Amino acid sequence: MNVFMKRAVELAVDNVREGGQPYGAIIVKDGDIVAEGVNTLHKIYDISGHAELIAMRKLQEEIRTNDLSEYVMYASGEPCKMCQSAMYLANLTRIYYCQTMQDAIDCDFPESDCLTLEKLNTLANKMERLELEEGMEDPIKLWAQK
Amino acid sequence: MNVFMKRAVELAVDNVREGGQPYGAIIVKDGDIVAEGVNTLHKIYDISGHAELIAMRKLQEEIRTNDLSEYVMYASGEPCKMCQSAMYLANLTRIYYCQTMQDAIDCDFPESDCLTLEKLNTLANKMERLELEEGMEDPIKLWAQK
Repeated sequence: MNVFMKRAVELAVDNVREGGQPYGAIIVKDGDIVAEGVNTLHKIYDISGHAELIAMRKLQEEIRTNDLSEYVMYASGEPCKMCQSAMYLANLTRIYYCQTMQDAIDCDFPESDCLTLEKLNTLANKMERLELEEGMEDPIKLWAQK
Repeated sequence: MNVFMKRAVELAVDNVREGGQPYGAIIVKDGDIVAEGVNTLHKIYDISGHAELIAMRKLQEEIRTNDLSEYVMYASGEPCKMCQSAMYLANLTRIYYCQTMQDAIDCDFPESDCLTLEKLNTLANKMERLELEEGMEDPIKLWAQK
């Protein structure tokens, strides 16, 4: 383990001491830590307040681009599918993590919070398509015409 | 299609007229629209600024809970895996969408922005685990002891 992962784990430990969940994340470029985040669910109502997403949002706002293709993520815990998706969209080069979802489940962390692919797939049962009706403006085609 | 999806599509159309991407979303409870969101990628640096997540964040802050189990989502476009994951974590009851990812791809919407499961799975090649070393504090176990 390198100094970057040690810092991510340290952030996670500190977050627990402050009443939060045991997750921290940092983003690195050219050997420097350029952003840090911790899980904020204990203090802000926002289901997307996971450590990885918090670090990404901070960085994207600061560097004024959503393209993180030159950056590396170190997350103290295995990223859930929401955070993985955001990392995919942001083109992160490389993602390191330390503790697994199973580590969390073994410590009675709420299983529903460990978002695996199997769980995500169950959402399909709750989703339904309603098609555009005739005469309605088509937003995607409108976008394409611009 | 009902009035709720019509409103989501209308938001998407308006967002295109304002220079944004063709996506809108609303959240409904007991027949009332309680939150609205549009894709904010044209004006805020935050890769998670998709219409569905924006609507969820607004609502969660307002009602001061992340539990949306009594709420229904209407999204003008098929939700990507990031937004689906957030909806799963928030326990949304039901999700309706209108235009598909294929509709977007057919109109030359950047394919990388249409986040499907197949694409998300490619992220596995970029992920690697670094284990805790002896003597380091274990954040998850620390959390479990509290």
